Amino acid sequence: MVGLAEFEERAGVIELAWGHPDPRLLPVTALRQAGDRALRRYGADALGYGNPAGAPPLIDMVRRRLAEIDARSPAADEVAITAGSSHGLDQIATLLMDPGDVALVEAPTYHLALKILRDHPVQLVSVPSDGRGLRIDALAEAIRGVRVKGGRPRILYTVPTFHNPTGLSLSGRRRRELVALAAREGVLIVEDDAYRELAYDGPPPASLWSLGRPGTVIRLGTFSKSIAPGLRVGYMTAGAATISRFVDGGMLDSGGGNSHFVALVVAEYFRAGGYARDVQRLRVAYRKRRDRMLRALERHMPKGTRWTRPAGGYFIWVTLPPGHDTRELQPIAVANGVGFAHGRTFFGDAPGGVQSLRLAFSRYPPATLEAAIRRLGSALSTA
Amino acid sequence: MVGLAEFEERAGVIELAWGHPDPRLLPVTALRQAGDRALRRYGADALGYGNPAGAPPLIDMVRRRLAEIDARSPAADEVAITAGSSHGLDQIATLLMDPGDVALVEAPTYHLALKILRDHPVQLVSVPSDGRGLRIDALAEAIRGVRVKGGRPRILYTVPTFHNPTGLSLSGRRRRELVALAAREGVLIVEDDAYRELAYDGPPPASLWSLGRPGTVIRLGTFSKSIAPGLRVGYMTAGAATISRFVDGGMLDSGGGNSHFVALVVAEYFRAGGYARDVQRLRVAYRKRRDRMLRALERHMPKGTRWTRPAGGYFIWVTLPPGHDTRELQPIAVANGVGFAHGRTFFGDAPGGVQSLRLAFSRYPPATLEAAIRRLGSALSTA
Repeated sequence: MVGLAEFEERAGVIELAWGHPDPRLLPVTALRQAGDRALRRYGADALGYGNPAGAPPLIDMVRRRLAEIDARSPAADEVAITAGSSHGLDQIATLLMDPGDVALVEAPTYHLALKILRDHPVQLVSVPSDGRGLRIDALAEAIRGVRVKGGRPRILYTVPTFHNPTGLSLSGRRRRELVALAAREGVLIVEDDAYRELAYDGPPPASLWSLGRPGTVIRLGTFSKSIAPGLRVGYMTAGAATISRFVDGGMLDSGGGNSHFVALVVAEYFRAGGYARDVQRLRVAYRKRRDRMLRALERHMPKGTRWTRPAGGYFIWVTLPPGHDTRELQPIAVANGVGFAHGRTFFGDAPGGVQSLRLAFSRYPPATLEAAIRRLGSALSTA
Repeated sequence: MVGLAEFEERAGVIELAWGHPDPRLLPVTALRQAGDRALRRYGADALGYGNPAGAPPLIDMVRRRLAEIDARSPAADEVAITAGSSHGLDQIATLLMDPGDVALVEAPTYHLALKILRDHPVQLVSVPSDGRGLRIDALAEAIRGVRVKGGRPRILYTVPTFHNPTGLSLSGRRRRELVALAAREGVLIVEDDAYRELAYDGPPPASLWSLGRPGTVIRLGTFSKSIAPGLRVGYMTAGAATISRFVDGGMLDSGGGNSHFVALVVAEYFRAGGYARDVQRLRVAYRKRRDRMLRALERHMPKGTRWTRPAGGYFIWVTLPPGHDTRELQPIAVANGVGFAHGRTFFGDAPGGVQSLRLAFSRYPPATLEAAIRRLGSALSTA
């Protein structure tokens, strides 16, 4: 029988390629108690077909939490519960895109979002970034280019906050330019906001959703990073008409709200104060890991190597001096006991990333991260 | 705040339109205990990103259970866990159909399956049934008709066992003819097998999946009817290559296995013997309800009315004497304190169903069903 987990650790290898949480940080006991309480409190209501928009206690929790960690809190009809962000993105492609429509994507970007979009009959067009994230001028140019060829630029998928893979956040200025441009051009922004809760140097930036005019941005939130990915529950905030499109769709009409029972477990966990407490605990733990990895990079990387200094999330993006190819480095690094994700992975069909690699500091304690970076440095001397 | 449940009862109305379980029959306590045990047994493994095919203990349970209630048990690589059948059907349309492909559907059929398919860029073509279910000759003709117009008949969506809305099961002979025809024509059968566990007069018929050549049928199973719909967990059995297409898709690669945590709760419930015990309890309870509704129909329906005598599932299909229109009857029935689903609902764009209605005997105890049918009879005298 195969293992329970998607993650597989190779013997003797510290796996920094995977954007997974540390199992030791998952709130097993608190969720066990929340599950017990949810079924005592809601009884059979937790087990029947749920409200298609999602369990109201979880919608209420999302609204209350976003009032604390974002610049605006959604109205009740601006929220729907998803079965996680991956599922939310899949449903956006199904319900809001027509065959042949264009999805604009950043380069680099979350590689599996590209894979989800490619499962649909849509076209992907990459937009380049620079050291400060998505280039708004390049986006304007890409939109023009799509239109010239008769295409319909329908969505932009972007991770503006604690980006995957770079860890960077888009500046306030670029955020405002981006929402204005997208609104002007009629391009719907799909904001992957997975890492908002994991802010290590003060509050996270205001979401694009909070800055955009109603109806111009869908933000995908998730509890995969702030609680546990195995729950498969997240949310979207969007204009009320967009939310209606999901709620009135066949899947939710037929099956009732996404992840109904689990949504009530999460709401109960929140009600008991576990969520706020444990997110704070995660921030402290991951901040230490980020800091330790940054210090280790200073110590072990060859001259001329650059890396990002993320204020949140899971990832540091490392760019080696000219002449390196991280795909070629990969087997050498694994032989030295460290795994990473090579940069090309995140560029889809666009150029770039050859000298770069993504490191996740989420899964291991600080001392193990230190050892991993030492091994990476040693692999680089060998290569 | 809106209610937790999708179901809404109108004051004074017995609602027979909804295919929902009786909340009093949902195993609240047993699932509370199973949730507790699952987190004690699996710990953080229940909360991380799960194996994309689904949690192995639940796959194992599906294989063991189908060995008891179907003619063949799937191999491990012939099963994937879904987030319920609605989600499974949605994913079939996304991953296995191209824009413009044709989905053949029965008339009548489960109306929300039509709605799920219509959310995708595919065409629906209805195939007529008779009193013994889907007509295989009509299916052959429909396939020819699609091909003549240059279309590609990609799937047939069908509910062969304890059908929704009629309650009928396809005969063994038609099953064999159907799988042979579909294989010959290269049409993939999507078998909605939601009601298999709810068999009241002996074992259910062998599934199309068990009769078909490997790779020619996908069966959608669910725990919504046999445990609780709010869990949002089900499974599919299919050829190993088809399963791979789902497992290798972007959504599962990104998010890990569907409903991972809940899948382990269900596996634990099964392991403790709760599943087998409670399904037996459901069969006994629903059999009484079916019998009571059938007797009440004898007593209260006007002469010339016909109805099905289902051997399982949730539904009885009633056809009134010529001249009736159940859409017009509906408000009169509601005024008399009983709701039903009118027959046109289940025909999509195809003709039929004007004189028919669907009654669910799942949600209320026998005495209430008796009262409901008395009210329906009284509404019919008025109409």
